[in-house]
Amino acid sequence: MIRFDSDYLEGAHPRVLRALADTNAVQTPGYGEDEYCERARELIRSLCGTPEAAVHFLVGGTQANRTVIVSALRPHQGAVAADSGHIAVHETGAIESAGHKVLTLPGVDGKLSAAAVDALCRDHFANEAFEHMVQPGMVYISQPTEIGTVYTHRELEELYAVCQKWSLPLYIDGARLGCALVSEESWTLSELAALCDVFTIGGTKLGALFGEAVVITSPALQQDFRYLIKQNGGMLAKGRLLGVQFLALLEDGLYEEIARHEVELAMELRDGLREKGWDFLVESPTNQQFPILPDSAVEALREDFSFSVWQKMGEDSTAVRFCTSWATSPEQIEALLCAVPAREEA
Amino acid sequence: MIRFDSDYLEGAHPRVLRALADTNAVQTPGYGEDEYCERARELIRSLCGTPEAAVHFLVGGTQANRTVIVSALRPHQGAVAADSGHIAVHETGAIESAGHKVLTLPGVDGKLSAAAVDALCRDHFANEAFEHMVQPGMVYISQPTEIGTVYTHRELEELYAVCQKWSLPLYIDGARLGCALVSEESWTLSELAALCDVFTIGGTKLGALFGEAVVITSPALQQDFRYLIKQNGGMLAKGRLLGVQFLALLEDGLYEEIARHEVELAMELRDGLREKGWDFLVESPTNQQFPILPDSAVEALREDFSFSVWQKMGEDSTAVRFCTSWATSPEQIEALLCAVPAREEA
Amino acid sequence: MIRFDSDYLEGAHPRVLRALADTNAVQTPGYGEDEYCERARELIRSLCGTPEAAVHFLVGGTQANRTVIVSALRPHQGAVAADSGHIAVHETGAIESAGHKVLTLPGVDGKLSAAAVDALCRDHFANEAFEHMVQPGMVYISQPTEIGTVYTHRELEELYAVCQKWSLPLYIDGARLGCALVSEESWTLSELAALCDVFTIGGTKLGALFGEAVVITSPALQQDFRYLIKQNGGMLAKGRLLGVQFLALLEDGLYEEIARHEVELAMELRDGLREKGWDFLVESPTNQQFPILPDSAVEALREDFSFSVWQKMGEDSTAVRFCTSWATSPEQIEALLCAVPAREEA
Amino acid sequence: MIRFDSDYLEGAHPRVLRALADTNAVQTPGYGEDEYCERARELIRSLCGTPEAAVHFLVGGTQANRTVIVSALRPHQGAVAADSGHIAVHETGAIESAGHKVLTLPGVDGKLSAAAVDALCRDHFANEAFEHMVQPGMVYISQPTEIGTVYTHRELEELYAVCQKWSLPLYIDGARLGCALVSEESWTLSELAALCDVFTIGGTKLGALFGEAVVITSPALQQDFRYLIKQNGGMLAKGRLLGVQFLALLEDGLYEEIARHEVELAMELRDGLREKGWDFLVESPTNQQFPILPDSAVEALREDFSFSVWQKMGEDSTAVRFCTSWATSPEQIEALLCAVPAREEA
Repeated sequence: MIRFDSDYLEGAHPRVLRALADTNAVQTPGYGEDEYCERARELIRSLCGTPEAAVHFLVGGTQANRTVIVSALRPHQGAVAADSGHIAVHETGAIESAGHKVLTLPGVDGKLSAAAVDALCRDHFANEAFEHMVQPGMVYISQPTEIGTVYTHRELEELYAVCQKWSLPLYIDGARLGCALVSEESWTLSELAALCDVFTIGGTKLGALFGEAVVITSPALQQDFRYLIKQNGGMLAKGRLLGVQFLALLEDGLYEEIARHEVELAMELRDGLREKGWDFLVESPTNQQFPILPDSAVEALREDFSFSVWQKMGEDSTAVRFCTSWATSPEQIEALLCAVPAREEA
Repeated sequence: MIRFDSDYLEGAHPRVLRALADTNAVQTPGYGEDEYCERARELIRSLCGTPEAAVHFLVGGTQANRTVIVSALRPHQGAVAADSGHIAVHETGAIESAGHKVLTLPGVDGKLSAAAVDALCRDHFANEAFEHMVQPGMVYISQPTEIGTVYTHRELEELYAVCQKWSLPLYIDGARLGCALVSEESWTLSELAALCDVFTIGGTKLGALFGEAVVITSPALQQDFRYLIKQNGGMLAKGRLLGVQFLALLEDGLYEEIARHEVELAMELRDGLREKGWDFLVESPTNQQFPILPDSAVEALREDFSFSVWQKMGEDSTAVRFCTSWATSPEQIEALLCAVPAREEA
Repeated sequence: MIRFDSDYLEGAHPRVLRALADTNAVQTPGYGEDEYCERARELIRSLCGTPEAAVHFLVGGTQANRTVIVSALRPHQGAVAADSGHIAVHETGAIESAGHKVLTLPGVDGKLSAAAVDALCRDHFANEAFEHMVQPGMVYISQPTEIGTVYTHRELEELYAVCQKWSLPLYIDGARLGCALVSEESWTLSELAALCDVFTIGGTKLGALFGEAVVITSPALQQDFRYLIKQNGGMLAKGRLLGVQFLALLEDGLYEEIARHEVELAMELRDGLREKGWDFLVESPTNQQFPILPDSAVEALREDFSFSVWQKMGEDSTAVRFCTSWATSPEQIEALLCAVPAREEA
Repeated sequence: MIRFDSDYLEGAHPRVLRALADTNAVQTPGYGEDEYCERARELIRSLCGTPEAAVHFLVGGTQANRTVIVSALRPHQGAVAADSGHIAVHETGAIESAGHKVLTLPGVDGKLSAAAVDALCRDHFANEAFEHMVQPGMVYISQPTEIGTVYTHRELEELYAVCQKWSLPLYIDGARLGCALVSEESWTLSELAALCDVFTIGGTKLGALFGEAVVITSPALQQDFRYLIKQNGGMLAKGRLLGVQFLALLEDGLYEEIARHEVELAMELRDGLREKGWDFLVESPTNQQFPILPDSAVEALREDFSFSVWQKMGEDSTAVRFCTSWATSPEQIEALLCAVPAREEA
């Protein structure tokens, strides 16, 4: 059984694991106030070209999203997101349980458009009953999105301009950020940092055992953030584990190396499936691919492979998701491609 | 200036006001533990044919909705509602601020269909990531709906059957319940009480100064409800004011008398506008009417009348809302009809 | 049966009721955007000498407390209060249900001391684990307190100075404010408004059917307050009822007239009980009196009077609470005094 | 610098780390639905003698406490805890931020007494204003307590009897549970499991990188718990990391081996300090010791050792906390003892 369900099915990249082993016996203060976290924070600030940014390390994405959002909103405000946004769909209402509505807008290929956000704000403040409605308080997007697409520089510039027009902090969930950096769209950390107020650099899906780095560039959002991390259950006692892992990932380019590995293999898979004549739910330049296959083929594949069933497409075909990870091998991609029939034969 | 914006623009029906004056000097215990509230509770139980029901009196609808919903849900559950539902649109996220997502489904004429709720539940529990999504925990509808439509007996029977199939309590927001009772669809309180687990009898929009009676027929939802009323700011110190008003409204049929008055005048308005050739946003048998008028006519009407602008309809016409109340007079309807041009002249 | 349990056992003062009747038929916009509320807001601003203050009208005290507190705090902050504070004891955790801890300090005669608040803040920020503890975010007091005592000018000046030193907004719950104004300590609205950031003028316990006026003098706390009123269920549809009542109370001195009536009768009761040799739980200069009586006498009194049992005092005596209201008559006080035995006879 | 601040200053016990390395490359499903977690759950059920218990693995203690408590309480209920309880003091109001008041009672040596809980419940339901107060909904204790003391079998039996009398679920926070098991009081997992409704087995402070096992013996508390884990940010993507660690700890007695190591060294420290004539804040049979030392000695020790300043004791002495961990060596204890002056010399 070869698993393509997601990018968190194995442990950590060997170099990350080694770093944990090498530092295991060292005594450090807890809760992220150790030298490793401090060095990792410094490194991230310099990689992002944001010397004044606050950097915090959390274990998981839902924690990070919830903590960032509660730190930015007042009670009557909501977070604007695409209807496919992770906070809107797959966090069991973590944002609502913290008191805030997620104001969803129809996404286009999983992306939120500047025009849609602008219209939402205009309509809200123009509505005579505006005080009876949740006020847009910030904007949430994922880069890459939940379906693997990547905001272009143009798209993000326009979106951020609208956010600034309406004084809405823009938060970018970078659970798979590395894959956007190395995608055809090619982003640098500093280009991204310059077009938002707070974002995360995801470790879990790019070679770490776990860990998301929250980078807060907006001074307004930095105050007392550690209180909120603790209150939301995100303050790791042995916080050094996060610093050590992010140092291992970022110190010498391992993070982008892993991302490049994931994306290259995903592109191989994409091209191979295309050659076999299959269409895709969406054009994804990152490590998640969503081919649309006949249910018969899906059934047959299940014998040797695991993957996610994403969406029923008409009568007898289904969009499925294949993910690559730091551990995926060319042989595994090869095996999968061999097992998928060509369209004319299916 | 004649106001048709809503049904809460005047004080109370004179008989309700008189009841308040007549009992003003009497000393009673506070917080709804007085003889008037007790008699009103008894009366409501008998009118609903539910001798075991718990009955509570709250000041307003948002309070009532929030209190009922928090009493029925666990933290990971949400309230299913039509996308036009009051809790989804016009309560400034009161439900989310209490920790719960409102799971919206597209409404048909403002109504939630049994089929849509059934599909939502089936999809939720069939989804492999179901624990990452908000679980449907109850169903919220309004009778009449926010746009004046009324669930038929058939529709409500089917919806309640689906709710029972999935063990979802059904809550009916009766802010304008009286208007549904006397509408062409004609409902009795006991018919309604038999098809849900908890519902409200709205007083504010039917002749009271304020007040919603919450009728909880499901024993499972009755426990400790008064704690929740207090916690949610809904426990009125001089609670007797609510008991006195509901006694005045229900003791001798005043409630339905007022509802009949509101609906009859609304029907006159509807028929008059029809004769003038105008279409409506929706077919409403209750005290809210939503004609679609040319913007020019809307502008002209503003000089002597106030009303709500509901929705832009294409280029140069708009759906507006006219409401009747206990205080609306035939002369006011007459005046409005005279002021509206006939379609061919507009 | 004569009731002294509390000051909300009757309806409204006749002049308040008349004002409601006189304006009953007038059509006004809803939700507090009517001319009566606007005039009442203007009047309060001028009586308080705070032309820039924001003034809002809510139905009840728990609503007002909760709405003010959520508007002032971030999620990791708590409201500092005396352990006898209403928000700490008698609101069924409404503040916690909105996400905030109530940080209690031992009260002295129900009052919070400047020194205690100063020490709490100093200790918090000096603690090495401060980010693991709830941060003091504002201060809540009641004037008069829950046991009838009144902050002196000196006490409030010192407390407010400490609040400003630590940048903590000071909120004064004035559910019975009128009684403090006319007490021996004698306060004016503008003196009080100058020593806090937000306070309430209670109507329910001083002749209104219901209603608390929230006066926000601090510009920082004014933004978007109406959204929060709506979200917390405090926005009354027929909001004019609150404006009309506060106009009736404040336009020509009725508010202080009622307060004076309540306090004068309470002083008569206090002096009468003293003459009979009884001690008090606390020295109260307002409309609540807490004599300590033998259980035998308490039992005997129950036959003809109702009142609150406040606190067991040693073996066989109890502190009870007697409240006066706008409707209490000298004869009722007389009757109560006759029924209480002299100490030597008891 | 030798650190005694706490028991989470190093990484994992080598055997735990090795288990993570050995399983690193294996592909498993995410979110705790892997074979390692399943085997660890089975093992814990058998060690606890509770074949029907639900077992879940979370990353941290605050997450675990919050998730267990929100799963057990309705909105108007609070968690009863000692005033020194972790949820009351050191979780930045995580419980309140989830909507629940922590009802604190004075602890005796950090323990909650059966009598105190019984009195709280009796007083609550006897109070005429009970619906205006937070209802006791569950009981929270720590074993060992935050100051290292251990509930005796007698104490826990009495406490649990009172909890059952009032239908309050009893939750035991076992962040340092291993130390209680091997203490002079000596507990087995099954003895403990039989005297509560839900408890945790702490890994973070006993040799794991991180991890708390939540054992829910009460069927009533088991439903939908995974939804709540996800909503509260506690569902680890690479959940297998928790299963692997708990297997390594529990499979062959490593957990108690580590606990014994921690406690034995703590007892050496305790005895050594006693011989030098020092008193303690409390008599602790576990891995936290709280000697009371003169400030001069505390200052001197800071040069070579780090530890927590716990509490000022009178003029010029302070209670400090020394913790031992899986990594503490006899030499380190020796070094510390040498550095502490004898009382007569101090």
